[in-house]
Amino acid sequence: MTQTLSPTERQLPASATIRDNDAAVVDVESLGRVLLGKWADNRLAARKIAGMEAMQTPAGLTYTEHRERVMDQLKILVESKSVHGAFPKYVGGEDSHGANVAGFTELVVADPSLQIKAGVQWGLFGSAVMHLGNREHHEKWLPGIMSLEIPGCFAMTETGHGSDVASIATTAEYDAASEEFIINTPFRAAWKDYIGNGAVNGKAAVVFAHLITQGVDHGVHAFYVELRDDNGFLPGIGGEDDGIKGGLNGIDNGRLHFSNVRIPRTNLLNKYGDVAADGTYTSDIESPGRRFFTMIGTLVQGRVSLDGAAVNASKLALKTAIQYGTERRQFNGASDIKEEVLMDYQQHQRRLLPLLATTFAATFAHEELLHKFDDVFSGAHDTDEDRQDLETLAAGLKSLSTWHALDTLQECREATGGAGFLAENRFTALRADLDIYATFEGDNTVLLQLVAKRLLADYAKEFAGADFGVLARYVVGQATDVTLHRTGLRRIAQSFRDSGSEKKSAIALRDPRTQHDLLADRVGTMVAEVATALKEARGLPKDKGAAVFNENQHALIQAARAHAELLQWEAFTRGLERMEDAGTRQVMTWVRDLFGLCLIEKNLGWYLMNGRLSAQRARTLGPYINRLLAKIRPHALDLVDSFGYGQEHLRAKIATGAEKVRQDEAMEYQRLLRASGAAPVDEKVLIARRKAEQKKSRK
Amino acid sequence: MTQTLSPTERQLPASATIRDNDAAVVDVESLGRVLLGKWADNRLAARKIAGMEAMQTPAGLTYTEHRERVMDQLKILVESKSVHGAFPKYVGGEDSHGANVAGFTELVVADPSLQIKAGVQWGLFGSAVMHLGNREHHEKWLPGIMSLEIPGCFAMTETGHGSDVASIATTAEYDAASEEFIINTPFRAAWKDYIGNGAVNGKAAVVFAHLITQGVDHGVHAFYVELRDDNGFLPGIGGEDDGIKGGLNGIDNGRLHFSNVRIPRTNLLNKYGDVAADGTYTSDIESPGRRFFTMIGTLVQGRVSLDGAAVNASKLALKTAIQYGTERRQFNGASDIKEEVLMDYQQHQRRLLPLLATTFAATFAHEELLHKFDDVFSGAHDTDEDRQDLETLAAGLKSLSTWHALDTLQECREATGGAGFLAENRFTALRADLDIYATFEGDNTVLLQLVAKRLLADYAKEFAGADFGVLARYVVGQATDVTLHRTGLRRIAQSFRDSGSEKKSAIALRDPRTQHDLLADRVGTMVAEVATALKEARGLPKDKGAAVFNENQHALIQAARAHAELLQWEAFTRGLERMEDAGTRQVMTWVRDLFGLCLIEKNLGWYLMNGRLSAQRARTLGPYINRLLAKIRPHALDLVDSFGYGQEHLRAKIATGAEKVRQDEAMEYQRLLRASGAAPVDEKVLIARRKAEQKKSRK
Repeated sequence: MTQTLSPTERQLPASATIRDNDAAVVDVESLGRVLLGKWADNRLAARKIAGMEAMQTPAGLTYTEHRERVMDQLKILVESKSVHGAFPKYVGGEDSHGANVAGFTELVVADPSLQIKAGVQWGLFGSAVMHLGNREHHEKWLPGIMSLEIPGCFAMTETGHGSDVASIATTAEYDAASEEFIINTPFRAAWKDYIGNGAVNGKAAVVFAHLITQGVDHGVHAFYVELRDDNGFLPGIGGEDDGIKGGLNGIDNGRLHFSNVRIPRTNLLNKYGDVAADGTYTSDIESPGRRFFTMIGTLVQGRVSLDGAAVNASKLALKTAIQYGTERRQFNGASDIKEEVLMDYQQHQRRLLPLLATTFAATFAHEELLHKFDDVFSGAHDTDEDRQDLETLAAGLKSLSTWHALDTLQECREATGGAGFLAENRFTALRADLDIYATFEGDNTVLLQLVAKRLLADYAKEFAGADFGVLARYVVGQATDVTLHRTGLRRIAQSFRDSGSEKKSAIALRDPRTQHDLLADRVGTMVAEVATALKEARGLPKDKGAAVFNENQHALIQAARAHAELLQWEAFTRGLERMEDAGTRQVMTWVRDLFGLCLIEKNLGWYLMNGRLSAQRARTLGPYINRLLAKIRPHALDLVDSFGYGQEHLRAKIATGAEKVRQDEAMEYQRLLRASGAAPVDEKVLIARRKAEQKKSRK
Repeated sequence: MTQTLSPTERQLPASATIRDNDAAVVDVESLGRVLLGKWADNRLAARKIAGMEAMQTPAGLTYTEHRERVMDQLKILVESKSVHGAFPKYVGGEDSHGANVAGFTELVVADPSLQIKAGVQWGLFGSAVMHLGNREHHEKWLPGIMSLEIPGCFAMTETGHGSDVASIATTAEYDAASEEFIINTPFRAAWKDYIGNGAVNGKAAVVFAHLITQGVDHGVHAFYVELRDDNGFLPGIGGEDDGIKGGLNGIDNGRLHFSNVRIPRTNLLNKYGDVAADGTYTSDIESPGRRFFTMIGTLVQGRVSLDGAAVNASKLALKTAIQYGTERRQFNGASDIKEEVLMDYQQHQRRLLPLLATTFAATFAHEELLHKFDDVFSGAHDTDEDRQDLETLAAGLKSLSTWHALDTLQECREATGGAGFLAENRFTALRADLDIYATFEGDNTVLLQLVAKRLLADYAKEFAGADFGVLARYVVGQATDVTLHRTGLRRIAQSFRDSGSEKKSAIALRDPRTQHDLLADRVGTMVAEVATALKEARGLPKDKGAAVFNENQHALIQAARAHAELLQWEAFTRGLERMEDAGTRQVMTWVRDLFGLCLIEKNLGWYLMNGRLSAQRARTLGPYINRLLAKIRPHALDLVDSFGYGQEHLRAKIATGAEKVRQDEAMEYQRLLRASGAAPVDEKVLIARRKAEQKKSRK
């Protein structure tokens, strides 16, 4: 048994003491500018719109009222030309991808229903026509899509298949005689489901279906299908309303089914695969698998957008909760007359500040994702490798940030008690709306497996045929310095610098190199372990191989998560370099350290079990994090102010300073009462006095 | 660096192999009987009522419609005499406390709003009159409270003070001339807030206020105050509606304020403190602190009820999600034509089965809490110590189970994808309603500090003045066998049996003694560490002392949580003894092991850092848990069926078997299509064929 240490004894040795930098002050404005990133103007313009009352939704509407209101809000977006930036110039767009998404992600602060309904119309339906169709398609349909003359659906998901798009069952069979495709949903599970604009508004849809011609199934393709005219569904089309949902009730999600619905041959969005009049199928991409992933890959924008929106929702929540936490007083601590402000409690810091640190990490990571996205879609850097990096990065970051937003909204709700539960403070509605972000545009658990698949593929490329001895030597060589260059994916690397060395004391924990190496080492080691296990599956019958894979599924997902966390940490660290103000950089470095060290603390078992941290050093971690919290605490309000959201965005009563007004009024009342001499005496005081007198009289 | 082990190498040595008990079958009915516990009849009767359509609430009502519906449902509860069991026989009750709460906790399955509104009326308002008033009060008001003639409020919480009841600011000053109390809310922060029945229905209230007489403040007491007649608020009383909330919108929460509201002297609920006509204050309990805690302590029923309700909500969610998980197929794994059932994926097991194990643990712990509650309030075992044990147990278990319910509902929502987000499957509404359970009747974070305070007090009693050497010896002596006797609180105990001994292989992990000792050791050590740190605070000036406390707040809360988890583990283990069917006991033992080992895995860093587990042994934990999951998987449906909820309680479309019908239809369609020879050929198959032919022709 290790000797039990008192908290004081557990404190860091003097050499590791954090330099007490009292001069460190956050320059809110300059930090705010860094956070706004490359497309600051687009963000600010979108925030202006999001701050309009007409773009916001009061609590308590019925779902039908909410749907109508959001539809009206979409019209305002059209009028203000806020959502057309990504479309080609020849139809009135700007060919501007990163800027468009940057602005779009800000709409979440108005109402997530508005954001997602706009996303359905322009980000999914419109994008599919743009990315999968040809110029004729663009010129024919995009103007109506952009103007909202054609509200449309992105009809991909089916009741029987969620994130597994390749397995959908809707068919589009080519009939050469009429030169038409015939769309069918052959059974109930093949109905399109959860389709935004599907229940009421959708006049057309991009329908994903297996393209069948000349007796061959060429896999999933996208087809433009008209759904409704003014009298409702066109012949052969039916559907139903998904009804009330856990959130996002401003969107009319619904189900659609097709029975022998005929569309012209030219309604196939044929960029990656076409059918000639005689029924001959052609495609520039020979492999059906690659073709499918290329098509689906063009739709990555949805994941990029959700990542950004989730980060923005987290910012809103933290600003509100931390504002309240600096005003709300509860329980007598140090003082008899004045209660403590919530943010001064260690536990309150523990609840909110790591979430704040993660929100900054996610902000920087999202900005990099947006750059990568813009690079690919502007054509600046658009190789296969770039696209794969983009998809992997989007999958990983979207998973982390959407879960993070839910955790943050919930913690902020609880940290503000009963007030947090009232609709007037918005946590609960935002959380209800964002709930589905964790599973749409790809279930997070599935997305992390996508990330893992890429990690394994990279690993295989590097180490094909290598035995473990070779691997170990390679890894040691790598460890010297792969470090912090900007790249979508990390090479597998690990470091031995930290492990075993008792002399290098806890000072190492605040060395970014140590943090990086610990985080990177974990990813690399986990991937290597899983890869080794999966090697055994090669050559086994399919069911046995699948069993081996299944036995490693949890580890694989953990590895992917660790990888995405590392990417966030790296993005944060690169973000620090963009801070010119020394005080800001100092405080934000503490925040980055908090992020990194909380990740290590979360997986402390792994680090100890695998000999990456000594027990001695591990014991310094908790106290060190607590000291970081105390150091960051005075800057908490500045940090959330740097997010730049105004009252028109927050729209939470407890973010207005109302609590401080109440607290001040209460304290002033008590002060006056005491001063007046009319205040009742506390019975406890009376008892104490009596005891003191008895004691005296006995003497 | 520790050598990297492949998953196979990491598997348990042969000696530790879990005996493959293929014969183990869960006897659903007998397990169900054990779970129903002592008050099975009351539970079943309440479930019958909860299954009535009139007691349930369709999605999409406005909050005003929902409020009206719930008020009507309360009338049905009155007619069916479902909620009066706890009241004295002389007013028509049954003096039956455990039975009453057992039934009451089942109402959550109808609609949490109904449960909580009933709780406000009978569990809080009625209980306060019962426990704090005298027989005259009972005879005067309880009949009207029981019949709902007097819908009432429990007016404790104020805008400025949530869980810190002692600091509320409403005053009740005695005026001897008129023999009346004068109630005042002196400033905005003193308004009563979040008060159920406060916005609309409440005709009277038990108002908590500082009792002031003869210039002395005797602390918080409860007063019966009439609020409204048919024309609205009575003179001097005002308020406002809290409006829409994150959930529980069937309840009219509101704010109340009082300006010189006069009530008769005899409206003081005077069981623990009284004021004579001349203004003289008397109480049987001399210490104002103890008096306050005694009064508040009588209201523990609320926490006991929330604990049980949260466990029941978790059961509903898991039955629905696991039912769906055994029907839903997604992604091709082992087979080319048949996709995998979700529950067969390791990650799906990892997501749901530990939550299921925790739900069982919480069920057994709740049953014990209910016994303790009944023992105290029936007077069977009603010492000061019993009451303190009850309060500590209720505080700890309520915290764990309400958080657990939120985690479970969320995980079930995500594990069922888009379907889980639809109102028709109920996860989202239940989660929205239960959200506030984590902070009402005491914020969970505050409640855990209450638990911690008790742990520290117990520790101080045992070890007053002891130095650390003495403590260590004591602890070794204790470790021999404190173990599994039934008691509300654990003595501080730890064991060295497990640590350091590499020889004792992973087989130890499934030994309940090992699990227990590891869990108990962690509690004991953490409490001892915090106690030692706090010892330094003695004699320091108050602000310095508060700072020391604050630096240990997080550790203290962790210790309390660990303590409550240990209590759950012990209750589960005792529960196993009540299972007569061997197969059921075998499967449930695996479930208990899963619960215990997941707790240890969650805190693996602590165990390694403190030398309680060797790295070698720690590495066996993850694979062992994965094997347990695979063993429990075939029994998952039986286990959730043992909860005994029918379709009338679940009311989730995906719990009806609908998914299986859809899957079967789809598979049958594909089978017939293949059989007909009309199925299109997959392009991938075509390519493979072509390649094979090319290869052949080249030969």
